[in-house]
Amino acid sequence: MTTRPALIIANGELPDPKLWSDLLQHNPLLVAADGGAERLTAHGLTPHVVIGDLDSLSSADALRMSGARIIRVTDQETTDLEKALDFLLQAGTERVTVLAATGLRSDHTLANFSILLKYHRRMDIRFRDAFSEISVVEGERTLALVPGTLVSLIPMEPCIGVTTVGLQWNLRQESLAPGVRESISNRVVSSPVVIRIDRGRSLLFVGLVL
Amino acid sequence: MTTRPALIIANGELPDPKLWSDLLQHNPLLVAADGGAERLTAHGLTPHVVIGDLDSLSSADALRMSGARIIRVTDQETTDLEKALDFLLQAGTERVTVLAATGLRSDHTLANFSILLKYHRRMDIRFRDAFSEISVVEGERTLALVPGTLVSLIPMEPCIGVTTVGLQWNLRQESLAPGVRESISNRVVSSPVVIRIDRGRSLLFVGLVL
Repeated sequence: MTTRPALIIANGELPDPKLWSDLLQHNPLLVAADGGAERLTAHGLTPHVVIGDLDSLSSADALRMSGARIIRVTDQETTDLEKALDFLLQAGTERVTVLAATGLRSDHTLANFSILLKYHRRMDIRFRDAFSEISVVEGERTLALVPGTLVSLIPMEPCIGVTTVGLQWNLRQESLAPGVRESISNRVVSSPVVIRIDRGRSLLFVGLVL
Repeated sequence: MTTRPALIIANGELPDPKLWSDLLQHNPLLVAADGGAERLTAHGLTPHVVIGDLDSLSSADALRMSGARIIRVTDQETTDLEKALDFLLQAGTERVTVLAATGLRSDHTLANFSILLKYHRRMDIRFRDAFSEISVVEGERTLALVPGTLVSLIPMEPCIGVTTVGLQWNLRQESLAPGVRESISNRVVSSPVVIRIDRGRSLLFVGLVL
């Protein structure tokens, strides 16, 4: 089954739509995680689906009138972003970009990165903010990137045998770990860039070329 | 040796000085990590010390004229925040608050949390942003907190045997781990709050009562 890609608006800082107008061009399913709905309507966009415990949503009726499907899920164990992702998994969605997953409350930012680790094996999931596209690297990834692009590898669990090709400061069978070592603001010198991790998963930040 | 507490301005989003005017009242040593210096001067404050590779600092001469001590450290292996912390450790500083450690580039935010883990055993170090005070819990911590305060425990390494007292959803010998489980937006119901972790360290976010 192939479904259209989804765009989730989470609880952080929503970048200016100019920075994600490309994502809107492919008619994605627009999903607002709870209060994210109001950030969308502030930009003249109506979500197709609003999901969450709806405790931070004051405009549910207006959204329903505009054709949004409102799904209330009360569950103390999962955040609104997880509720939105669970809904999409059940709908068979294969590719999700999450906006507003970073910025504002940094406990939310960190918890959202943790969610990226929880879901990346089940769907093609990435975050996009005003500065970068953020995804998980496990095993090997090959990326076509413009030389000069900033690349950071920041693990949330120990990573062993990290090797890169195509960066200014390449790693060769090195270890990265939270509180020990990360690779921040590395830079693409030749494409494709290859990143291989023998054991563990790392967050990958690819700077937007603006 | 007792030295005056230090306030470092890092590379993220500097909150409005109204939110940290309390920190300025105790005559702290004002240390700017590289470009953080310009964010301070924009608010009419002059750093006592500016430290970093100075590649993002265009006003070094003006700062020197204002009496700032400028220390250039070139070292690809450490970030400007680490350079500032190393300088303070050598100076015998015991207590450091870091501003602008979160926000803007989320790879920086995450790398700065990693630095919090690297340094917390050597000094009393905490981050402060517009939303919370962020520190590391290892072993047991007792905190006097106003009921209603938001508290998040978000680990960057597995934490085993996590027990809390005084929160709305208390943990009882539970496990937290990145990509598995965290405790976000818990709430103080009675003070003092006690947090105990048998093994591992967690980031602790205490919401500011504004």
